[in-house]
Amino acid sequence: MEKILRIHMGAEGGPKFSEGPVGDYAGLGGRAMTSAIVAKEVPPTCHPLGADNKLVIAPGLLSGTVAAMSGRISVGCKSPLTGGIKEANAGGQPSQVLARLGYAAIVLEGKPRDETLYKILINKDGVRIEPDNSLKGLPNYDLIEKMKAQYGDKIACISIGPAGEMKLAAASIACTDMELRPTRHAGRGGVGAVMGAKGVKVIVLDDTGKTMRSPKDPEKFKEATKTWVKGLQGHPVTGQGLPAYGTNVLTNILNEAGGYPTYNFKEGRFSGAAKISGETQAELETARGGLATHGCHRGCIIRCSGIYNDKDGHFLTKQPEYETVWAHGGNCGIDDLDAIAQIDFLDDNFGLDTIEMGATIGVAMEAGLLKFGDAQGAIKLVKEVGAGTPLGRILGSGAAVTGKVFGVERVPVVKGQAMPAYDPRAVQGIGVTYATTPMGADHTAGYAVTANIMNVGGQVDPLKPEGQMELSRNLQIATAAVDATGMCLFVAFAVLDQPETFQALIDMINAFYGLNLTADDVTALGKSILKNERDFNTRAGFTAQQDRLPDFFKKEKLAPHNVTFQVKDEELDQVFNW
Amino acid sequence: MEKILRIHMGAEGGPKFSEGPVGDYAGLGGRAMTSAIVAKEVPPTCHPLGADNKLVIAPGLLSGTVAAMSGRISVGCKSPLTGGIKEANAGGQPSQVLARLGYAAIVLEGKPRDETLYKILINKDGVRIEPDNSLKGLPNYDLIEKMKAQYGDKIACISIGPAGEMKLAAASIACTDMELRPTRHAGRGGVGAVMGAKGVKVIVLDDTGKTMRSPKDPEKFKEATKTWVKGLQGHPVTGQGLPAYGTNVLTNILNEAGGYPTYNFKEGRFSGAAKISGETQAELETARGGLATHGCHRGCIIRCSGIYNDKDGHFLTKQPEYETVWAHGGNCGIDDLDAIAQIDFLDDNFGLDTIEMGATIGVAMEAGLLKFGDAQGAIKLVKEVGAGTPLGRILGSGAAVTGKVFGVERVPVVKGQAMPAYDPRAVQGIGVTYATTPMGADHTAGYAVTANIMNVGGQVDPLKPEGQMELSRNLQIATAAVDATGMCLFVAFAVLDQPETFQALIDMINAFYGLNLTADDVTALGKSILKNERDFNTRAGFTAQQDRLPDFFKKEKLAPHNVTFQVKDEELDQVFNW
Repeated sequence: MEKILRIHMGAEGGPKFSEGPVGDYAGLGGRAMTSAIVAKEVPPTCHPLGADNKLVIAPGLLSGTVAAMSGRISVGCKSPLTGGIKEANAGGQPSQVLARLGYAAIVLEGKPRDETLYKILINKDGVRIEPDNSLKGLPNYDLIEKMKAQYGDKIACISIGPAGEMKLAAASIACTDMELRPTRHAGRGGVGAVMGAKGVKVIVLDDTGKTMRSPKDPEKFKEATKTWVKGLQGHPVTGQGLPAYGTNVLTNILNEAGGYPTYNFKEGRFSGAAKISGETQAELETARGGLATHGCHRGCIIRCSGIYNDKDGHFLTKQPEYETVWAHGGNCGIDDLDAIAQIDFLDDNFGLDTIEMGATIGVAMEAGLLKFGDAQGAIKLVKEVGAGTPLGRILGSGAAVTGKVFGVERVPVVKGQAMPAYDPRAVQGIGVTYATTPMGADHTAGYAVTANIMNVGGQVDPLKPEGQMELSRNLQIATAAVDATGMCLFVAFAVLDQPETFQALIDMINAFYGLNLTADDVTALGKSILKNERDFNTRAGFTAQQDRLPDFFKKEKLAPHNVTFQVKDEELDQVFNW
Repeated sequence: MEKILRIHMGAEGGPKFSEGPVGDYAGLGGRAMTSAIVAKEVPPTCHPLGADNKLVIAPGLLSGTVAAMSGRISVGCKSPLTGGIKEANAGGQPSQVLARLGYAAIVLEGKPRDETLYKILINKDGVRIEPDNSLKGLPNYDLIEKMKAQYGDKIACISIGPAGEMKLAAASIACTDMELRPTRHAGRGGVGAVMGAKGVKVIVLDDTGKTMRSPKDPEKFKEATKTWVKGLQGHPVTGQGLPAYGTNVLTNILNEAGGYPTYNFKEGRFSGAAKISGETQAELETARGGLATHGCHRGCIIRCSGIYNDKDGHFLTKQPEYETVWAHGGNCGIDDLDAIAQIDFLDDNFGLDTIEMGATIGVAMEAGLLKFGDAQGAIKLVKEVGAGTPLGRILGSGAAVTGKVFGVERVPVVKGQAMPAYDPRAVQGIGVTYATTPMGADHTAGYAVTANIMNVGGQVDPLKPEGQMELSRNLQIATAAVDATGMCLFVAFAVLDQPETFQALIDMINAFYGLNLTADDVTALGKSILKNERDFNTRAGFTAQQDRLPDFFKKEKLAPHNVTFQVKDEELDQVFNW
């Protein structure tokens, strides 16, 4: 990871690339890298689909090593959805492969001079950029099959589907998993539209001939990884809950807590929750010959994913995540797991963020386009997006645009990005994160569900405003740092509860890079990332007024607790005043 | 004009109204009134379609008097298009009638409890609010015919078409003209969507039994109006150019100046300009038995409007304005006056802002939905809006949303509102106005075309940045004041050039209200209006970053002068630092 690859899509005579040392960005990985490059090099007021925006793809600091859980890749740019800075990250294989190929970042720059679509091939022999208009319009699954046929099955791919080509603001970037399927997505903020605007359909990575990255101090590294693995396996969430039921273990938990947004954030409990819960899902997966416990990348030991087969036992999609099951399920009043799984497949295939799409369909239901609970109607709508019909383009532009086009007032977005699967009235800590993170409504940016609901990393009453600002602030700082390491965010459960697991993470970084970082340094890193991001947004024209939830969360009481969002604006404005 | 009528659309048991004295808002009219009420009473971060927004309709200070040109009505609210404060104004009869009925403002408040559509009737006997779902979906012309059948031909109407009912952000509010046709529109900023969100289809005004408003000093008033009329008739623009050819006299002038935005702001001259110029239009109108010179309201002496008949001599639409002819003409590469007139009729009938719609179709052409120059395709698109198809809803949401949905980078908007018919690169003064006015791109907010192109009110080189900031600033201040009087903005040509005409305007106000205002007071009024508006926008989350033109105006050179927009950001930031 000693070099940065820059691909100049607008170069005269066709795209060209250059490679250089990491330079100013030395020591950065993942989100720290993407946000540093975007904040420094992208004019904050530029058009997100224009020549001045850059798409930065960066593995984490520990990606490509033997450290467990280090397979997250960060994708950064100015977001077409929010107009602010964006880091979206994903699992799958590309992060490890890209790191082993020696790249700390790929930066797609400029704007292609015509409509030609390109593929980029990177292996031990170097970089090739090839026009390939035969890829136009291909959904992700077909695309990857084609890449596999051409380049073998040792590759890892980063790609966009039709949604990215159409530059839709809900378009994701797909990363292939261990089975070489395009199932892991850098979903949020429309990063796929920026890749589409750069004219790049797929980046094919092949690390054949390359080896695992070697630590500076192999002994210390080995020791730290042991403690690390032990910590993860010993915590009830990372060692039991997530492996057994996946992220969808949360359906019953959030529904019980009354914080499960139902019918476009109208109620906090869904009568059909049991039918789409992680427990039901795992049972179904096992019965159909799928897998209820499965990793998304080599080196994963939590294995929160799975394989979801259809009624006939054929692969339908990877195990849909909690947020996906919620977005396309309870949020839309849909309690049919097979329908949800089918939409999950369609989202992956077209290259769409499942959270944004589910929230958007909820808004479409609120607008009266179809009824809450209409699973077949919802499937039809997602197919419209893939087909690029006018209606599909509206929906593919996300919940905010859909609300605007259909004149809907109740649109659950912050900074134009749809809220995930936790109602901010019943989980007030996550409401602080939704409102204030530079990313737009994003649960992963500061997952206060931990202390609010799961009693991990402390306990803060979810229904009251007290303590939520500090909780969200601390989690946002810690998360930014974790997002720099390439570590899956789920390590946070063990890291928050077990000091020795947190120390093991620091030890791994120190042993690998020959450093002497302390916990304070980690905090400082998190703060510096957030500062970069906030600063970009300020220069883009964001103010405190954008750090707010939509009015209806402050006015409409959420059943069953009959509570509104109570955290005061003045408190929200203190989150980054550390 | 001693009272304010408030209609509470969300009241229990159905809409209720209350009347009260003007109180805090005494002495205000038109834009001064609407902006004061919106700035004081509407929470700046509220949803524009929600209960907290208010729609304020206010005649000007001199409306309802015998003063020539005093028939403009102001409509204010938080804009669904820009998210900021909005004042859109229109000619036609309602301002005079409303003023004579004694109302300084009508304020529509709250949110209806169901989908019932209401009409509001105001006459000498009082106010009636009646549910009338038979009006649902009616285009403006059919609606007004129905009102005429019910209430006679002495009425004046303020109404929305299907676009307003659909709450589309390009929806206008129509005002009837002297022939009781819905041809004069408060077009900009989606004010029609706010009226739609309030559940009000039409306000029917009847001043039968009421008399002209009487001045405090009739003699002085009479004298001032004489000087006023003489000044307007003596100026070449208001006395000759506008009466003869209407606003469309500008097509040849702007085209000659190289500032006529062509093909979605790609070029500054249109080869088909002569075919759609005011001169050609006037000739055609006369030949077909229409009118080339006609007023939009009683008391108009400039008479810049006209009657546009079809080939068979039947009424098609009122004389399309310059901005309309440009938006649907040169901007889209269309040089067919009949097609443009047909679209003008459709826009009026559906209740759509012609500038926003023309700019939107230009963006759709840029996106490849249809070719530049495709007149029949453009007509079809506008019909889609009226029909409320998904494509129609996209287009009816304006240029910014259309650009987002179709992934277009070149979108000529500021604060989400489409630019009018003057390229800011070749008319740099108007660029300053577009960028900085609280309204979003709006030529009427500070019409620098005067000194830049027409040598009215001074001379400032249109292609250079020098002096543009001061020019725009002074015009924005003056315009805000004029917009408070109810005077048509076209009086500005004579007012700017002839000190005695400016003095006559002040004299009329003084004589009417028994005041002793000076020119300095007029300036102070303009400044206070702008301050209110800027302050609202700041509280809504606007910063200097929103006071900018899209990047491409700073990067792409405009033929034939090959010039970019040169006014520096630092200068733009000084406009309101007076």
